[in-house]
Amino acid sequence: MKLFPTAYSKPGTKPGTLSDAKSGRCELHMMSYTHAKLVERPDIEPDACYSYIKDSDVTWIHVQGAPDTATLRTLSKAFDIHELYLEDILNTGHRAKLEVNEMQAFIILSLPRFEGKQIVTEQVCLFLTDHTVVSFCSGVLDPFLLVRERIRKPISKHRQRGGDYLTYTLIDSIIDHAFPVVESLAEDIQVLEDKLLEKPDKAIVQEIYFLMRQLLLLRRRLWPQRDIVSQLQRDDNLELLADDTRVYLSDCYDHCVNIIELLETYHEITSGMLDLYLSNATHRLNEVMRVLTVISVLFMPPTFLVGVYGMNFDTSASPLNMPELASPYGYLFVWLAIISMMGGMLLYFRKKRWF
Amino acid sequence: MKLFPTAYSKPGTKPGTLSDAKSGRCELHMMSYTHAKLVERPDIEPDACYSYIKDSDVTWIHVQGAPDTATLRTLSKAFDIHELYLEDILNTGHRAKLEVNEMQAFIILSLPRFEGKQIVTEQVCLFLTDHTVVSFCSGVLDPFLLVRERIRKPISKHRQRGGDYLTYTLIDSIIDHAFPVVESLAEDIQVLEDKLLEKPDKAIVQEIYFLMRQLLLLRRRLWPQRDIVSQLQRDDNLELLADDTRVYLSDCYDHCVNIIELLETYHEITSGMLDLYLSNATHRLNEVMRVLTVISVLFMPPTFLVGVYGMNFDTSASPLNMPELASPYGYLFVWLAIISMMGGMLLYFRKKRWF
Amino acid sequence: MKLFPTAYSKPGTKPGTLSDAKSGRCELHMMSYTHAKLVERPDIEPDACYSYIKDSDVTWIHVQGAPDTATLRTLSKAFDIHELYLEDILNTGHRAKLEVNEMQAFIILSLPRFEGKQIVTEQVCLFLTDHTVVSFCSGVLDPFLLVRERIRKPISKHRQRGGDYLTYTLIDSIIDHAFPVVESLAEDIQVLEDKLLEKPDKAIVQEIYFLMRQLLLLRRRLWPQRDIVSQLQRDDNLELLADDTRVYLSDCYDHCVNIIELLETYHEITSGMLDLYLSNATHRLNEVMRVLTVISVLFMPPTFLVGVYGMNFDTSASPLNMPELASPYGYLFVWLAIISMMGGMLLYFRKKRWF
Amino acid sequence: MKLFPTAYSKPGTKPGTLSDAKSGRCELHMMSYTHAKLVERPDIEPDACYSYIKDSDVTWIHVQGAPDTATLRTLSKAFDIHELYLEDILNTGHRAKLEVNEMQAFIILSLPRFEGKQIVTEQVCLFLTDHTVVSFCSGVLDPFLLVRERIRKPISKHRQRGGDYLTYTLIDSIIDHAFPVVESLAEDIQVLEDKLLEKPDKAIVQEIYFLMRQLLLLRRRLWPQRDIVSQLQRDDNLELLADDTRVYLSDCYDHCVNIIELLETYHEITSGMLDLYLSNATHRLNEVMRVLTVISVLFMPPTFLVGVYGMNFDTSASPLNMPELASPYGYLFVWLAIISMMGGMLLYFRKKRWF
Amino acid sequence: MKLFPTAYSKPGTKPGTLSDAKSGRCELHMMSYTHAKLVERPDIEPDACYSYIKDSDVTWIHVQGAPDTATLRTLSKAFDIHELYLEDILNTGHRAKLEVNEMQAFIILSLPRFEGKQIVTEQVCLFLTDHTVVSFCSGVLDPFLLVRERIRKPISKHRQRGGDYLTYTLIDSIIDHAFPVVESLAEDIQVLEDKLLEKPDKAIVQEIYFLMRQLLLLRRRLWPQRDIVSQLQRDDNLELLADDTRVYLSDCYDHCVNIIELLETYHEITSGMLDLYLSNATHRLNEVMRVLTVISVLFMPPTFLVGVYGMNFDTSASPLNMPELASPYGYLFVWLAIISMMGGMLLYFRKKRWF
Ligand SMILES: [Mg+2]
Ligand SMILES: [Mg+2]
Ligand SMILES: [Mg+2]
Ligand SMILES: [Mg+2]
Ligand SMILES: [Mg+2]
Ligand SMILES: [Mg+2]
Ligand SMILES: [Mg+2]
Ligand SMILES: [Mg+2]
Ligand SMILES: [Mg+2]
Ligand SMILES: [Mg+2]
Ligand SMILES: [Mg+2]
Ligand SMILES: [Mg+2]
Ligand SMILES: [Mg+2]
Ligand SMILES: [Mg+2]
Ligand SMILES: [Mg+2]
Ligand SMILES: [Mg+2]
Ligand SMILES: [Mg+2]
Ligand SMILES: [Mg+2]
Ligand SMILES: [Mg+2]
Ligand SMILES: [Mg+2]
Ligand SMILES: [Mg+2]
Ligand SMILES: [Mg+2]
Ligand SMILES: [Mg+2]
Ligand SMILES: [Mg+2]
Ligand SMILES: [Mg+2]
Ligand SMILES: [Mg+2]
Ligand SMILES: [Mg+2]
Ligand SMILES: [Mg+2]
Ligand SMILES: [Mg+2]
Ligand SMILES: [Mg+2]
Ligand SMILES: [Mg+2]
Repeated sequence: MKLFPTAYSKPGTKPGTLSDAKSGRCELHMMSYTHAKLVERPDIEPDACYSYIKDSDVTWIHVQGAPDTATLRTLSKAFDIHELYLEDILNTGHRAKLEVNEMQAFIILSLPRFEGKQIVTEQVCLFLTDHTVVSFCSGVLDPFLLVRERIRKPISKHRQRGGDYLTYTLIDSIIDHAFPVVESLAEDIQVLEDKLLEKPDKAIVQEIYFLMRQLLLLRRRLWPQRDIVSQLQRDDNLELLADDTRVYLSDCYDHCVNIIELLETYHEITSGMLDLYLSNATHRLNEVMRVLTVISVLFMPPTFLVGVYGMNFDTSASPLNMPELASPYGYLFVWLAIISMMGGMLLYFRKKRWF
Repeated sequence: MKLFPTAYSKPGTKPGTLSDAKSGRCELHMMSYTHAKLVERPDIEPDACYSYIKDSDVTWIHVQGAPDTATLRTLSKAFDIHELYLEDILNTGHRAKLEVNEMQAFIILSLPRFEGKQIVTEQVCLFLTDHTVVSFCSGVLDPFLLVRERIRKPISKHRQRGGDYLTYTLIDSIIDHAFPVVESLAEDIQVLEDKLLEKPDKAIVQEIYFLMRQLLLLRRRLWPQRDIVSQLQRDDNLELLADDTRVYLSDCYDHCVNIIELLETYHEITSGMLDLYLSNATHRLNEVMRVLTVISVLFMPPTFLVGVYGMNFDTSASPLNMPELASPYGYLFVWLAIISMMGGMLLYFRKKRWF
Repeated sequence: MKLFPTAYSKPGTKPGTLSDAKSGRCELHMMSYTHAKLVERPDIEPDACYSYIKDSDVTWIHVQGAPDTATLRTLSKAFDIHELYLEDILNTGHRAKLEVNEMQAFIILSLPRFEGKQIVTEQVCLFLTDHTVVSFCSGVLDPFLLVRERIRKPISKHRQRGGDYLTYTLIDSIIDHAFPVVESLAEDIQVLEDKLLEKPDKAIVQEIYFLMRQLLLLRRRLWPQRDIVSQLQRDDNLELLADDTRVYLSDCYDHCVNIIELLETYHEITSGMLDLYLSNATHRLNEVMRVLTVISVLFMPPTFLVGVYGMNFDTSASPLNMPELASPYGYLFVWLAIISMMGGMLLYFRKKRWF
Repeated sequence: MKLFPTAYSKPGTKPGTLSDAKSGRCELHMMSYTHAKLVERPDIEPDACYSYIKDSDVTWIHVQGAPDTATLRTLSKAFDIHELYLEDILNTGHRAKLEVNEMQAFIILSLPRFEGKQIVTEQVCLFLTDHTVVSFCSGVLDPFLLVRERIRKPISKHRQRGGDYLTYTLIDSIIDHAFPVVESLAEDIQVLEDKLLEKPDKAIVQEIYFLMRQLLLLRRRLWPQRDIVSQLQRDDNLELLADDTRVYLSDCYDHCVNIIELLETYHEITSGMLDLYLSNATHRLNEVMRVLTVISVLFMPPTFLVGVYGMNFDTSASPLNMPELASPYGYLFVWLAIISMMGGMLLYFRKKRWF
Repeated sequence: MKLFPTAYSKPGTKPGTLSDAKSGRCELHMMSYTHAKLVERPDIEPDACYSYIKDSDVTWIHVQGAPDTATLRTLSKAFDIHELYLEDILNTGHRAKLEVNEMQAFIILSLPRFEGKQIVTEQVCLFLTDHTVVSFCSGVLDPFLLVRERIRKPISKHRQRGGDYLTYTLIDSIIDHAFPVVESLAEDIQVLEDKLLEKPDKAIVQEIYFLMRQLLLLRRRLWPQRDIVSQLQRDDNLELLADDTRVYLSDCYDHCVNIIELLETYHEITSGMLDLYLSNATHRLNEVMRVLTVISVLFMPPTFLVGVYGMNFDTSASPLNMPELASPYGYLFVWLAIISMMGGMLLYFRKKRWF
């Protein structure tokens, strides 16, 4: 995940500035339905959307990818989207948020997914008015394929209900996309734990570090979604939501909280893994040093002693010069001294429980 | 405990989807009682339950195990359980929660128990309406055996009171199941503490790690129960609860808080154990290194010196070639030098308090 | 202090179950007083208490020790104590709490004291109605001796005021018992600090660990008392308290907060002591290793060199075999080489600031 | 950034004391505009400002640099600025704050920017009344150049709106100046991460330390701005703000929160980098010590052995004196002993997985 | 600073007990003023104070030092001070607090100052009624000298305003005394940082420890002052404060928050310094160990080899006994072996980037 995900305009520029530099390719998909009928128009032109908005229908425009400023301005005119919201849609990497007027709501959410082994987060914006929903999703993967399947079935709940139920299913779908990501992180932790217990190597610390980094960054992205769903669910001023949609949002809120708590617990567990690694490394160091010290202490004094009797002092020059060399028991005594030194040391180490 | 305990449906699927894959074997047990009479039907069929629901009786259905979708749908129709609640019952590993309407309450709790040396948590769901309670418990062990004993006694409080008192005893029973688990964790800590002080080995760090992991995961599961009991107890809108049941819930709340606080304190204590282990390991390392250094410093210089006089330079080639060898006091001086070197070092180490 | 202090009944047992297993010896002490008169009855029988309760008098029954179930039931009948409160009184180790009805209050507090060098906490329960107070204290030491002294003086405030002032003095007395304990912990910290700076040994880490453990456990016991006093002081529904008693509770609240904050600060300070110990140990290790390395680096190369000229190659076999041995300046050159090696090393170490 | 940024008067001095010691050079810039006209006066004298204040115009005075007390008093008289605010303007390094009366608002903000590689924060004060804005910015760089550009365009929003929109753009401009600073900190973190993985050296820990220090100090400066913008946006008593300006402040609030959360996440990530460094260092130490120990263990015993047979005991003095030397297979046996010792050690190390 | 600063009475003693043991020498200073006149009486007797209290004047009595119980009782009668407040005044080391009645306020604050290099905190108590202020300050240094100077000037704000403005200036003066202390702590941190980067020694860790200890203890003392000022400023029931005094308290609140935040940031920075010290120490240890290992690995095998050829096996006893010694190229081959061993090791170390 990016450390600094936020796209921003130069400080001091006009609020609502739309830079074409951030625009890219996008595709629009429209569904307009009542209980009785469904009109679906993939790859619709922005200008064509306006004609499908009717008071009796639920109209949903989905914009996949990075829309250019022209598309945004067209949609803005058709649905009365505030210029500040347009800027937020373009400047991806925005913090999740909810802006509510009595008859309008603007929601930004984060969609986490895997790109290879990396987690990336797409920005999803929802703009909701009385009976229309406009959704924007950065990136190339459309997260709403299953929702469309459900709308196409004439007996589905969507076809009985309004734009608020559609909005709920979109939010629910985005939030549930976090489950496989979090599950995969849990598997990563378990793999790292096994490695840590069986054969820890240097690379494992880096893997733990990057796991913690991902957990921190992901938590920061998903954390505000909890408040957004809670606010949607509780806000009595928001006339857009039918009362029986609130119980669905409550289910959605559970999932947000669950995901956040899992991420926090994983962070604390990986933090414990680092401590485990360090403690094990210190233990191994102790063991290695004990072996070194035992060997050194056992062999250094005898090596000194045999060095003494390897000196070449001229025994004939004086009776004080190494008389031991000529003693018949000299060699035996040296071995005796060596063996008792070593034995004493071994007893001392055993007493100190060094092995 | 599982790192990722939550069973979830594929993101984008319809809310309330019941997957048969998660179904298993289950057993239903029904009790229906008034002050005067008690009907008990173990192993009742789901369809048979409906006939026992009377306005004058308290009816309690307990479902032990993983119910199949058919059973769930039958119960849902009989007691008017929302499809989202059915999904929560199937998708075990759900975060504890409380959903309240005026005349209905749905509660999810976590039941911790030991499976061998591992802690596992079962999901317990309670669905409460005016005079009926439906309870669901995953796993094979029925946690409500003692409650049933009490109901069977005609003089018990249960027989004088309504479904709200029954619900309280079920909640109380679930929450109190945490006490033996927490007590056992406290014993584990004490065993680890003793080991740590007497003979710490490498395995102890892993044991501490897994203890902390269990404490973290268990706290995450039990934490939300505190708010649930508090909410039940305070909520004035919940007409299901008689006023004199609230004092019982208050007792239950105490237990929740006590358990959470014990788990948090244990986490901080085990965190201190890790620090103690590391400090001890570092201390031992210091001690080992001091021994090594003292021995090396004592014996390296003398070993060098006796090496000098072990050289074979031809003393006859020049008077400059090792004249010491022929000196009558050469050998004595070497020993004197060695002893003063060693003595000096020992004084230096004593001054530095190395031993 | 005990890691798991809570006595609990088997999960699923009836609320209000009183187990005789937890009962022990107890002593009752009664005082009944007005402005004009004082009746004091030490070692009163439970049944005798009822006759002293009059609307005009303040009646205080103190139960010291572990009451048996019969005593509890007698008192419960006389003063109308709820069965759940009786269970809390028997199951010592309960979290501090306050339960309030309009005309009754039940309070559990923790009384810390030293038993040898160990801190233990006794459970103190207070049951307060209009003009009667029943107090229970586990253990053998009566914490209210000084309060009784004050009541015996006819001019004391007690004799001018009601049961609420008595309750305040009991609470105040319990809470103030923490001061000498906290003061003694502060002295322990200072002793450990001095040891740490002067001569840290291995045992000090264990002492710090057990100090932190005590701080954590004590804080957990005393923490809820703060909210209890605050709640008593603020609660307008509690008609038992006269308005001019509230200013006294406010003084009591100060003491609670002060004690908690001291315990938290001590925890952070002892945590810093561990860091200080580890840093010092690492520093000492560095110092030891530097000495070892300097000595090894100084003497290993010369020792190798003199080893070379201690070889016994047959110089007569070939002029290539150790011709240095016969050179008149060989020995001198060897010493020169040794001295310049050592000097160079010393310069290098000095440059690296190793000594 | 400065550890102690706050300029303060001697404790006990009169509130509102203006010390000339803190005054320096400053430049005033005035813009006064309506929809129809614009008067711009760079380098205006303080006394001249008063004449431009008209009820029909928006008048903006910007003071860049450190104003002297005379200038402050002139402006204070013209715009009715409280003496405490004047003191805050002079005593730079003030915590960000908002003071609101019904028809006046005084705001202090922090403007972070780079001065070379160091982050410095300038203090920006805004004083807002009905249709006038006075802004003060310490330092030499004017942060409002782009805002002035926009005002000069007759079609800009500024020319259609009042002083509240101007105030919003000034606040927005200050807060957005944090984005490039935070982005640059994110780049520093990434550079440090790469260094840490590729070739960590001693300097890297210092760099991490100074990065964490900057993150902490910057967060402390920017943290209160979040509450200020939130308060401005919500406060219904503040009649200075038009309702359609609040949606703009809401956008501004998002940015504050985003910046704070990024800084906090970076702090946790850099904290993880320190752990990674330490773990890697410990791993390397282990590796080095293993090499040392393996070599020592392999060569110390053989070196002792060959030392034994380098002793000069007189074999002719006794048959007990080193009879091995004369044995025809002595030398072979010594090599055999050496090789089997070394081989045994290598097998032991391999079993212990030391290499 | 003292770990346990609180003076307390024996648990169970009567609330409001005044112990003469805590009394000492004290000096009273009185100022009584209106707009027109000022009466100042240094060293006034307690009994004489009463006569100066007039409804038209502001009367301020300052008590410097530790008053005896007689003085306290005299003042208590004259100004109607509650017995619990008298006890708080005697028992210095009290947590900062505010007690408010409608027409009385009692405030305890902490005055930090340096005594040599140590920070000590004096207890300052303020007792405020309609037009009188009684202040108490422990210790010998009077913190209000500058305030008195200001009162003496007939044109000062004090002379135009009532007792509430005087109280504000006293509070402000106490709180501002923290600025030089915090500034000095910031300087200490910077000195320690420089030492840490240039030449860290063992003593530095102890200095950091004591700095953190001071920061923790000082924060604990100053933390509650923030709530006190905030409460004073907001409390609408407190009729003692004129509305235009509240803006001054708001300035004072800023200073409290600023000081607390600085102390917290310094705590986190010093915590980072410990990490930096440890990381540097570990790095140095690595470096030292690398040097030791390189030297050992380079010289141990050659030293063994030359030891082999220093053995005295009798070459004449058997052709198997060290035939190399007689080989004409033996010596050359030994050097070749040594040089290639060393070269190989150096290449291996270079590859491992050990130097
Ligand atoms: Mg936590
Ligand atoms: Mg947490
Ligand atoms: Mg957290
Ligand atoms: Mg956390
Ligand atoms: Mg933690
Ligand atoms: Mg950590
Ligand atoms: Mg805590
Ligand atoms: Mg806690
Ligand atoms: Mg916690
Ligand atoms: Mg914790
Ligand atoms: Mg820790
Ligand atoms: Mg920590
Ligand atoms: Mg803290
Ligand atoms: Mg704290
Ligand atoms: Mg704390
Ligand atoms: Mg704490
Ligand atoms: Mg803590
Ligand atoms: Mg710490
Ligand atoms: Mg830590
Ligand atoms: Mg955090
Ligand atoms: Mg933080
Ligand atoms: Mg945070
Ligand atoms: Mg943080
Ligand atoms: Mg953290
Ligand atoms: Mg902080
Ligand atoms: Mg903080
Ligand atoms: Mg803090
Ligand atoms: Mg902190
Ligand atoms: Mg901290
Ligand atoms: Mg931190
Ligand atoms: Mg830390």
